[in-house]
Amino acid sequence: MRVSAPRIDADRLLRRLAALAEVGARPDGASCRLALTDEDRAGRDLVVSWMRDLGLAVRVDQVGNLVGIRAGTEEAPPVMAGSHIDTVATGGRYDGNYGVLAALEVVAALDERGVATRRPLAVAVFTNEEGVRFQPDMMGSLAWAGGIAVEEALAARAPGGASVGEELARIGYAGPEVPGFLRPHAYVELHVEQGPVLSSEGGRLGAVERLQGISWQEITVLGTANHAGTTPMALRRDAGHAAARIACFVRELCEGAQLGTVGSLELSPGLVNVIAERAVLTVDLRNPVEEDLRAAEARLAAFLPRLAAECGVTIESRRLARTEPVVFDAGIVARIRSAAAALGVPARPMVSGAGHDAQMMARICPAAMIFVPSVGGLSHNPAEHTEPADLALGAEVLLRVLLDLAGEPTR
Amino acid sequence: MRVSAPRIDADRLLRRLAALAEVGARPDGASCRLALTDEDRAGRDLVVSWMRDLGLAVRVDQVGNLVGIRAGTEEAPPVMAGSHIDTVATGGRYDGNYGVLAALEVVAALDERGVATRRPLAVAVFTNEEGVRFQPDMMGSLAWAGGIAVEEALAARAPGGASVGEELARIGYAGPEVPGFLRPHAYVELHVEQGPVLSSEGGRLGAVERLQGISWQEITVLGTANHAGTTPMALRRDAGHAAARIACFVRELCEGAQLGTVGSLELSPGLVNVIAERAVLTVDLRNPVEEDLRAAEARLAAFLPRLAAECGVTIESRRLARTEPVVFDAGIVARIRSAAAALGVPARPMVSGAGHDAQMMARICPAAMIFVPSVGGLSHNPAEHTEPADLALGAEVLLRVLLDLAGEPTR
Repeated sequence: MRVSAPRIDADRLLRRLAALAEVGARPDGASCRLALTDEDRAGRDLVVSWMRDLGLAVRVDQVGNLVGIRAGTEEAPPVMAGSHIDTVATGGRYDGNYGVLAALEVVAALDERGVATRRPLAVAVFTNEEGVRFQPDMMGSLAWAGGIAVEEALAARAPGGASVGEELARIGYAGPEVPGFLRPHAYVELHVEQGPVLSSEGGRLGAVERLQGISWQEITVLGTANHAGTTPMALRRDAGHAAARIACFVRELCEGAQLGTVGSLELSPGLVNVIAERAVLTVDLRNPVEEDLRAAEARLAAFLPRLAAECGVTIESRRLARTEPVVFDAGIVARIRSAAAALGVPARPMVSGAGHDAQMMARICPAAMIFVPSVGGLSHNPAEHTEPADLALGAEVLLRVLLDLAGEPTR
Repeated sequence: MRVSAPRIDADRLLRRLAALAEVGARPDGASCRLALTDEDRAGRDLVVSWMRDLGLAVRVDQVGNLVGIRAGTEEAPPVMAGSHIDTVATGGRYDGNYGVLAALEVVAALDERGVATRRPLAVAVFTNEEGVRFQPDMMGSLAWAGGIAVEEALAARAPGGASVGEELARIGYAGPEVPGFLRPHAYVELHVEQGPVLSSEGGRLGAVERLQGISWQEITVLGTANHAGTTPMALRRDAGHAAARIACFVRELCEGAQLGTVGSLELSPGLVNVIAERAVLTVDLRNPVEEDLRAAEARLAAFLPRLAAECGVTIESRRLARTEPVVFDAGIVARIRSAAAALGVPARPMVSGAGHDAQMMARICPAAMIFVPSVGGLSHNPAEHTEPADLALGAEVLLRVLLDLAGEPTR
């Protein structure tokens, strides 16, 4: 029986977050540590030094995934927590980093109180979650879950530049382990929400039940360039008009949990008095339920030929990306909600709109996520911010959930 | 009493059109003679040489307008025909050139038959109709009609470059005459349609009754950039969605003779998974009836604040250009139709969708236009084409209309 329960040290967590944010820091407050760059290496080196300070056994796999392992009292599959430390070009200081450093803080808190766990604890840092330099994104966790062959991941190449394999060798993180060499008992990822739901509701904790499926397509409309003043409306083949109709239709699809966004739309030749002959737009559809996402895709696919006939244009669509929704483990979600309730703060059941390493780990073990708010929903932005008290609260919940899971019988 | 009526020489007209098209010719077949460039000078020199060959008195005004005058049997205001020879960067061989060279051909045909006219005939070449390098477009005819002061026209400056006054001096076309030194008895402009109406109907001649009013505005929508996967639809301030709604609304305005075009639409940051924070689009509205054009502008202006409130965005609109519709002289239109009928080819009453020098001349004298087809409505395009037979037919009509007008009593 413990004299007092372990507590995380919020100041230590914040100091580590600040120190890691300094690596690749930009004048505007953003961090830029694109995967497998010198900045990523420097960030990895820093995290590895902290892992070693905490006595973790550091292991690196063939795609550069890093794992720091704290032994349990029994030999058994570990409970894993983690995330990634690579960033977009204008990364905030919490995205990814927070999940890794909060997991390290859990280890530190357990060490301080001398708390042993039955199962090992593993802190994971996955390679190239952001997918800025190398496709696909979530590469490291995807490889861990067996969703991409090592050779394929290593062959991925930055546009006009080096491959993942070359860059891993260059920065010294081409490890010997086979990705997935540990198959966790459970995986828990703590993350800032990267969306406005908690922030707008004044909530402080989210228990993520699902992760949306994502459907990206690029639609190209071909019409005929003509003079805006001399071409009767009935004789037009206006690619710009058709593109606007598609964008409006995408919004009409957004009933219930369906999200739809046209974030890019370009007209050619793009002149005030010339009817556009070409429009290229992107459509981003997301839904937490696969059959609903498919229904939205089907409605759009059925609309395009009707529109093409009506507008006298041709319309082609090309898939850019597609992932199915992920349903996280209900048992872990329940533990998250219990741990939060025990701390006196309700954890709101949530759907994640963004992709996370946890969705890959969910393929091979029970997994779930804990969210804390991003103020205003900002992320991938120098102004990304989460209140220190919320960062501390999230780490406390992570501590309790990991202790809970690591105490489960090993057989 | 004449032995035989004068007829234009189609081959000579086509040869001159071809020779002028060679000046500033591009490999793709287009001509590029931007106003007041060396190519424009070379084109002017060629036309002036033809004027002198025909014995015309060549006069140049302070903004570079060129007029070649054939004396009448009486001293009286001349009947003027003409157009412009400057081009856009990818100009076709007929736009503008045709109206000038057909008027020269009329003079040549009259000379061949020894036909004198009571009133003088004037062949005009107006400066900078296209408005590519220097604003406003239709500058020369506008100055002729007193719509812009000479000093203002001369001060117009190409972006980062020389002024109209400097370029006129450089190419040797800064003349002594005051623009408008001749106030014509009538003005007739022959032009390719630059639109598909005649071409699509199989018509060969148009008698232009009106020229549309033109309203250009640039609309800027400001929203908030946010993650496409994590921002609930109800919390979005999507500038791209609002822009698409505007484009669709513009199409809804197009009832009856109203034309509406969104030819340019740009989203920022323009990424598949980021809600656009900014959209900039242009709206081109045209109508041959001023009150109807105003009504369309008013409907759009009333829609924008409603949309802004609905979408949570701000919308600003800035006027880029505005001209009122022009009603051409019914008497000249009737003469055009009669002349066409006498040649056995009906001239379709038409509205011009494009701007022309004739609209400026209509401010100071009875004016109208004759159209021949552009195949497929193409113009401002290397592929611009009009059948030689139609070019000849239009010139025959011009000949008859000018003879008719120039025979009118002088007092």
